[in-house]
Amino acid sequence: MSWGSIATWRMSYEGMVEAKKILSQGGNSGDAVEKLIKEVESYPYYKSVGFGGLPNENGVVQMDASFMDGNTLAQGAIAGIQDVKHAISVARSLSKRHYNSFLVGEGATQYAKLHGFETTNMLTDRAKKIWEKKKKQLQTKALNPYDGHDTVGAVCLDKCGSMAVGTSTSGLFMKKPGRVGDSPLSGSGFYVDSEIGGAAATGLGEDIMKGCLSYEIIRAMGNGKTPQEACDKAVYPFIKKLKQRYGKAGEFSLIAMNNKGEWGVATNVEFTFCVANEQDPQILIAYPGNEETTDIQPITKEWLDKYEKRIKKPID
Amino acid sequence: MSWGSIATWRMSYEGMVEAKKILSQGGNSGDAVEKLIKEVESYPYYKSVGFGGLPNENGVVQMDASFMDGNTLAQGAIAGIQDVKHAISVARSLSKRHYNSFLVGEGATQYAKLHGFETTNMLTDRAKKIWEKKKKQLQTKALNPYDGHDTVGAVCLDKCGSMAVGTSTSGLFMKKPGRVGDSPLSGSGFYVDSEIGGAAATGLGEDIMKGCLSYEIIRAMGNGKTPQEACDKAVYPFIKKLKQRYGKAGEFSLIAMNNKGEWGVATNVEFTFCVANEQDPQILIAYPGNEETTDIQPITKEWLDKYEKRIKKPID
Repeated sequence: MSWGSIATWRMSYEGMVEAKKILSQGGNSGDAVEKLIKEVESYPYYKSVGFGGLPNENGVVQMDASFMDGNTLAQGAIAGIQDVKHAISVARSLSKRHYNSFLVGEGATQYAKLHGFETTNMLTDRAKKIWEKKKKQLQTKALNPYDGHDTVGAVCLDKCGSMAVGTSTSGLFMKKPGRVGDSPLSGSGFYVDSEIGGAAATGLGEDIMKGCLSYEIIRAMGNGKTPQEACDKAVYPFIKKLKQRYGKAGEFSLIAMNNKGEWGVATNVEFTFCVANEQDPQILIAYPGNEETTDIQPITKEWLDKYEKRIKKPID
Repeated sequence: MSWGSIATWRMSYEGMVEAKKILSQGGNSGDAVEKLIKEVESYPYYKSVGFGGLPNENGVVQMDASFMDGNTLAQGAIAGIQDVKHAISVARSLSKRHYNSFLVGEGATQYAKLHGFETTNMLTDRAKKIWEKKKKQLQTKALNPYDGHDTVGAVCLDKCGSMAVGTSTSGLFMKKPGRVGDSPLSGSGFYVDSEIGGAAATGLGEDIMKGCLSYEIIRAMGNGKTPQEACDKAVYPFIKKLKQRYGKAGEFSLIAMNNKGEWGVATNVEFTFCVANEQDPQILIAYPGNEETTDIQPITKEWLDKYEKRIKKPID
């Protein structure tokens, strides 16, 4: 059998290189998902996930994460956890429990400490500076404070045909304390069934959860749609529906892979993602296309150079 | 147009009598849902919801609740909130926000206090006695601590054709601090679309969320199934799948109503519920039937008398 992996955003590339090592050598999909996401959580310049993630309005980094095993449908999730280096690993350990597998707030942090997960102050100097700057701007200008909400979401398929999915995020920049998005919510931020495929979401969680978009994609793939057809069919009509019924729709993007390693994405905003199946990981860029389809192109060197400069730009 | 309401468990009866007053006089479905659930939250002998709800393993009552508007798909939810008299009202108020509409832990409690929601110690003497007794039993016997998990979930349809759904629960008795079940999770514990219908769940949240059962029921109704067909088709094959894939399935029950006021339920355990459409509320009792169907019967006076005695039995 073939292996495969798809994950949200440019930031998942280095993690996917690691995931490829596991999957190409016959390793487990859950191990690959965890490794991929831990790489993203560790890198201080990714400002919406793990170490270096931007804090809530009180200056506290609160993180959400989830893990799901596509063979057993077992799930683990955490929301509003603090001071924990690898939220994804805590979520994965909770997926082994039948009861109490979704923990939030102080209870989640206590669980992580009690079970020996590495703790650290997740607020970097850089993130603190960005927060202080934004606080000042908000005092004088009527800006929308909620502009950063990039979740790492990853789906992996291993050579045994097992699939797993995971997500990790520090959520909306300047969020209210305790705010939770779609990332730890089954069917909204993630879903996987090894007999069908997996999906994950990134973007404005408040809107993604109104449509249970990850579950909807799995259901469409289960009815015979390709991952790309499933993504297009789940995402674009829902955006239209949300505009009609709710009056507006936030930015969001979905990724999916089926149990043959075929993949798809859909988005209402410029969206980079990484994909590998039997090949080296590549970075692609997607845009909403015509008539409820998605335009997907290879990433350009120019885009990558600009990105590298942007994420490391000094904070004045 | 006709109005209607369906809600989980015997405990929702008194609230449905109040909801009927609102709905039969042309009132709003969201007001009816909130009123119904507030009645359940207020009654101290219902030990799995609101005041009188059983605490977590540390003796703290932590509550989860959700509200969804079927016209706009707007949602509000809270998890792990403390000291707040009406969790459902907090969830409903959050549904009016585009950002930060799902709050957990201390952040949820802070929000409620800041916005003037009534606070009180939710731990009754009776609940404390039950908790102390269980603590002692657990020291000497290997009991399953997690035996109480009855959520109030309610779907209402008003004369304008608007629908709403809400849930409220203190969650698993003896849960770990911060544990969250399906009740505040979109698509798992609740979902509603006024153009189709609404659904809500009660039971072991950890398993309900593995199947996104409320969303699955709405989807089946949207494809032309009656509420009863949709419940049967969503719940029974999923229980079979869960036993095959996960090795076991906890107890759970689902309720649904479509936008014509037709209703359905499915369950893998004895399950009482209340329903009203253009008539006085009635209490019914459901059991899993043959070949993936549900047996539904009127409640007997004998059952009701026993129930009344059981919930008020002195704690020795």
